[in-house]
Amino acid sequence: MDEIIAHLREHHNMYVEQVTALVAIPSVSSDPDRQGEMTRCANHLKQDMQQAGLENVQLMETGGNPVVYGDWLHAADAPTILIYGHYDVQPEDPVDLWESPPFEATQRDGRLYGRGVIDDKGQLYIHLAALDSWLHRGGSLPVNVKVIFEGEEEIGSAHLNDFLHRNKERLTADVVVVSDTGMFAKGVPSITYGLRGLTYFQIDVGGPGSDLHSGSYGGPVDNPANVLVRMLSRLKDDRGRVAIPGFYDNVKDLTDSERENFAKLPFDEDQFRKESVQAPGLVKDDEFSVLEQLWCRPTLDINGIQAGFTGKGAKTVIPATAMGKVSMRLVPEQDPERIGDLFEDFIQRIAPPTVQVKITRMHGGHPYLADIEDPIFAAAGSAVERAFNQETAFIREGGSIPFVRTITDSLQCPAILLGFGLPGENAHAPNEWLDLENFYLGMETIAYLYEEIPRHV
Amino acid sequence: MDEIIAHLREHHNMYVEQVTALVAIPSVSSDPDRQGEMTRCANHLKQDMQQAGLENVQLMETGGNPVVYGDWLHAADAPTILIYGHYDVQPEDPVDLWESPPFEATQRDGRLYGRGVIDDKGQLYIHLAALDSWLHRGGSLPVNVKVIFEGEEEIGSAHLNDFLHRNKERLTADVVVVSDTGMFAKGVPSITYGLRGLTYFQIDVGGPGSDLHSGSYGGPVDNPANVLVRMLSRLKDDRGRVAIPGFYDNVKDLTDSERENFAKLPFDEDQFRKESVQAPGLVKDDEFSVLEQLWCRPTLDINGIQAGFTGKGAKTVIPATAMGKVSMRLVPEQDPERIGDLFEDFIQRIAPPTVQVKITRMHGGHPYLADIEDPIFAAAGSAVERAFNQETAFIREGGSIPFVRTITDSLQCPAILLGFGLPGENAHAPNEWLDLENFYLGMETIAYLYEEIPRHV
Repeated sequence: MDEIIAHLREHHNMYVEQVTALVAIPSVSSDPDRQGEMTRCANHLKQDMQQAGLENVQLMETGGNPVVYGDWLHAADAPTILIYGHYDVQPEDPVDLWESPPFEATQRDGRLYGRGVIDDKGQLYIHLAALDSWLHRGGSLPVNVKVIFEGEEEIGSAHLNDFLHRNKERLTADVVVVSDTGMFAKGVPSITYGLRGLTYFQIDVGGPGSDLHSGSYGGPVDNPANVLVRMLSRLKDDRGRVAIPGFYDNVKDLTDSERENFAKLPFDEDQFRKESVQAPGLVKDDEFSVLEQLWCRPTLDINGIQAGFTGKGAKTVIPATAMGKVSMRLVPEQDPERIGDLFEDFIQRIAPPTVQVKITRMHGGHPYLADIEDPIFAAAGSAVERAFNQETAFIREGGSIPFVRTITDSLQCPAILLGFGLPGENAHAPNEWLDLENFYLGMETIAYLYEEIPRHV
Repeated sequence: MDEIIAHLREHHNMYVEQVTALVAIPSVSSDPDRQGEMTRCANHLKQDMQQAGLENVQLMETGGNPVVYGDWLHAADAPTILIYGHYDVQPEDPVDLWESPPFEATQRDGRLYGRGVIDDKGQLYIHLAALDSWLHRGGSLPVNVKVIFEGEEEIGSAHLNDFLHRNKERLTADVVVVSDTGMFAKGVPSITYGLRGLTYFQIDVGGPGSDLHSGSYGGPVDNPANVLVRMLSRLKDDRGRVAIPGFYDNVKDLTDSERENFAKLPFDEDQFRKESVQAPGLVKDDEFSVLEQLWCRPTLDINGIQAGFTGKGAKTVIPATAMGKVSMRLVPEQDPERIGDLFEDFIQRIAPPTVQVKITRMHGGHPYLADIEDPIFAAAGSAVERAFNQETAFIREGGSIPFVRTITDSLQCPAILLGFGLPGENAHAPNEWLDLENFYLGMETIAYLYEEIPRHV
């Protein structure tokens, strides 16, 4: 093992150069003009994977951008791990705000700056480096490894589910390992075991046939903006809890050990409010801490609302229509379909006969919660601790990562979200950065993981 | 009197041609590129007023577009009436929707189409025609007359109050007569004796320092859109009444005779809903009819609301800010200043400490209610009945006409709003029209009015 770690340390510069070469290809999946760059990036990755020692490396058809596949399957009777990553990146806009060119990865103050360095080109390279070290210094791996790098994560992984189902046998594994998340803080290496789900709606309220003068018509004519506001306000009670009957029915309680784990994390609510949120105050909750609210409690947020005259000045109009976008973050075991039905029923029940109400279900996703009692998490925890010399933080995350449920549901195996990003890394913003120390310790973590998994599972 | 009426009837075509010439000047006061047209229109009107027989005709400085003034003051010991009108017009946009060019007045089916034909060039010409007939056929008038035609009504009459105060002695009168309103319906000649007032606000709610990801931050971070919606919803109770404490304190009850008058008007609630409003239903009110709601009851309407993502699709954002525009129509004796204070106090009291709330008072105006027991209304009613051979409808109006209170407060005399427009006349829209029968009968009404006033007052 010392040799494997030594190999990684001797090749830091080489790995950074390889990430830099990958970043130089602007594989922005949302940009139709960069279709050629997607294929170029996939082919570049294919070469790097071959160079790392993977076998059967190939571009696999998805109907969209190809998945780059590789494997090493010579550890007889040992577990098989599937490594997932993605080689597509977010657009670089607004490009003026970058301090160095987005596609020229640049080192400053122990960080590598560039589009995709953390999301996810640098993080997927952590796995290629670990494989390279094991296969070139060690000559073999203590586990079987399959690797899939997709090219559509930033545009919703539309072809992933179908791809996984079509290639189910080839991709079968005991565990999926993904490095596309972050650590709770610098020096707090973390495994993310829970994600919130989502259900998202648009509500369109239609009243009069056209915008009307509020003087000539105000009073007997109901105002779609007033109606929408009234309906939306009834979705939450005075305590800020969601007031849709049945909404909390399947919400899983936090366990005592989760609460203890979260309470131990270095988190200052006032600093969070002042520095991250920059708001005058946070929502007070007698039952749940801020982290518990963020990670383990469902929400209902108005994401957008629009009606009538919104320019400068005053216009006395009764708008003909009003539109609201509302989403709910869901937690285990809330089902987005069921919650969606409750939401629609509730809105339709409180809609007055003075207007027409149309509800459009936009999209949704299931919440995710892994069983951290599964020995695979002990394996991952040990690997983290050996690399970082720190206890592993088991954390949850308030956002949703749709592909996680897609993969675990398709392949029927647990996922370990073992990522090395840091708060403020600008994953979808200008000046995206990768902490180089985390990059190096990440490689060592994954190298240890290959040894730890057969010990625990 | 028969001679006066005969003169009017013999000159119908001439008066239509004179209105047509006035309409041909695009005196759009809101368009800075048409400043020259404003002066051209004022000078054209000056000539028409001289031609009608008025004396001392002149352009008077206001600081903005000039007021065109004229008088005839030779009826010793008789009352003095002040005629108000305005020669500026609304913009012609969207010009594509006009069936004939907006500034070429065109006759079709008993109507004259063109920008300003009803608001207010055609209506002010009704007065010039009546003066012309009396002065040229009769040689004199039974009352003293002062005429002011302003050029800034469509942009808020900003200089009118100051102008009236500076010229108070010259403009002193026993009654102001204005033809800038409409009849309740064709064949229902009307005098408008009440107008609603207005107070208009913008509310800006600020929460986090920037838009935040609703997954990473939703829960402990309050959402300015949710807060705004919650606050706005509390402005009205479940019955649809305004819930601001003290809001109804000074609302004057309708009198029994008002209710009787309104009930006699040819008004079908279902037809109003289907044809004018085109909404699925009207607001049910156990205490007030639709006309009473429109004319005599205060309202609270959201005129605009905007927050977060309002484009196509879904974006999971907690908006940093939310903005709402809210106005209240006020009725006698509600005071816009006092209601504004109550509104601001209420909002600030219910604003949670998680956000910052800024309230901007946009503009406002007092409600107006004339005493129809004043004999001047009997005079006007008789004039109407002689011309139209119909009973006069005494009606109120849901909108606000700010200059009415400006004039009556400045000159300390009652106003008669005796207008000849009709529902659907498109005053501020393409294809504005003037009913030619009303135009002719309007002239006769005003001609009779000069005779009726000295009889009653």
